[in-house]
Amino acid sequence: MRFDIITVLPGLLESPFAHSILLRAQKKGIAEIQVHNLRDYATNKQKSVDDYPYGGGSGMIMTVEPFANCINHLKTQREYDEVIFMTPDGETLNQHIANQLSIKENVMVLCGHYKGIDQRIRDNFVTREISVGDYVLSGGELPAAVLVDAVVRLIPGVLSDETSALSDSFQDGLLDAPLYTRPAEWNGQAVPPILLSGNAGEIEKWRHEQALERTKQRRPDLLS
Amino acid sequence: MRFDIITVLPGLLESPFAHSILLRAQKKGIAEIQVHNLRDYATNKQKSVDDYPYGGGSGMIMTVEPFANCINHLKTQREYDEVIFMTPDGETLNQHIANQLSIKENVMVLCGHYKGIDQRIRDNFVTREISVGDYVLSGGELPAAVLVDAVVRLIPGVLSDETSALSDSFQDGLLDAPLYTRPAEWNGQAVPPILLSGNAGEIEKWRHEQALERTKQRRPDLLS
Repeated sequence: MRFDIITVLPGLLESPFAHSILLRAQKKGIAEIQVHNLRDYATNKQKSVDDYPYGGGSGMIMTVEPFANCINHLKTQREYDEVIFMTPDGETLNQHIANQLSIKENVMVLCGHYKGIDQRIRDNFVTREISVGDYVLSGGELPAAVLVDAVVRLIPGVLSDETSALSDSFQDGLLDAPLYTRPAEWNGQAVPPILLSGNAGEIEKWRHEQALERTKQRRPDLLS
Repeated sequence: MRFDIITVLPGLLESPFAHSILLRAQKKGIAEIQVHNLRDYATNKQKSVDDYPYGGGSGMIMTVEPFANCINHLKTQREYDEVIFMTPDGETLNQHIANQLSIKENVMVLCGHYKGIDQRIRDNFVTREISVGDYVLSGGELPAAVLVDAVVRLIPGVLSDETSALSDSFQDGLLDAPLYTRPAEWNGQAVPPILLSGNAGEIEKWRHEQALERTKQRRPDLLS
């Protein structure tokens, strides 16, 4: 799977893609992540990518042309399954959407910055608008990194143990049960004895009950 | 405001905190962001911070001791308003929570990695658990960056124009109206004439109608 990310701040995305699971996925050749500097596609002398909003108001708006140039250039090289714009206006990312995207081949991701982007970019090029949550961030870069991370770890072969992603929160509609590791007692606090019992069936049952209980208490909406 | 972030992958957070608004906030002395390497607080010879889960199952669990050591060490230096654990089990981050946190002085943020963290860390040290959304990521590092970004940009003096954050999506309970900048016509597509009218009252009215319409269509839940 390939991601092409268009941003005015490519440097911001350097370290998130150079560690951990995203690094491993790239090294294994399962995911390719290319970050493109929007400014390289600006055509005016100042290489500017933003301008004042029509109608007044604070903040700067990203102009149509650099995005159009970059997107059109990338489209000459391959077909894209989706051109995603990261925006708080978009549909809210969830595990279901991440699963959907993890079977795509080529996905382009546009990162806004400053106050926002010219509506005509959204009208002409974007196939899907995704929000990572109901809060405002400085730009679409961190949301793009979140999206790529959520999706890439679901591609078979990325996680060393495939069952690991399957048992994560949300994959089965429940939050995770409490987790414990050594020592068996810390600061007078013992691990639940059932986990030391060696009885796999009882442990599975306990975990399911705990997961259900936690979901009921914290996120009853997930159960309905 | 000060953030102390505890992670096993400090390098992953380098570039997000070294650009744009988060860089500016630190340079201005409004925000201080310290990233602590959990491994520095491991006490065993191998400097290990994780172990197998009790009761079996895939993935590794982060052990209590390194977190306890790091948290206790930081607490000798200052009082913390919150010790936040980033987890998909937590309350879902929204603009209201970001506003709440933006008036705190010292906030500690714990990033899980691998399969999860020992429940006793959560029981003993964590004052608040926050999720950035209903999806699973490789670790708490990107969520921590998202949280810091969402919060820091709300601190007065961080954004150059304070009205800019106030008119963002969600701050007034509505999504943003469409935005336009030059050129007035691109590829045969003109900017809505009202925005070129110079009539501030009519523009304000149009924007409010557009914001309301977009919210109705995309996020009716925000209106109820």
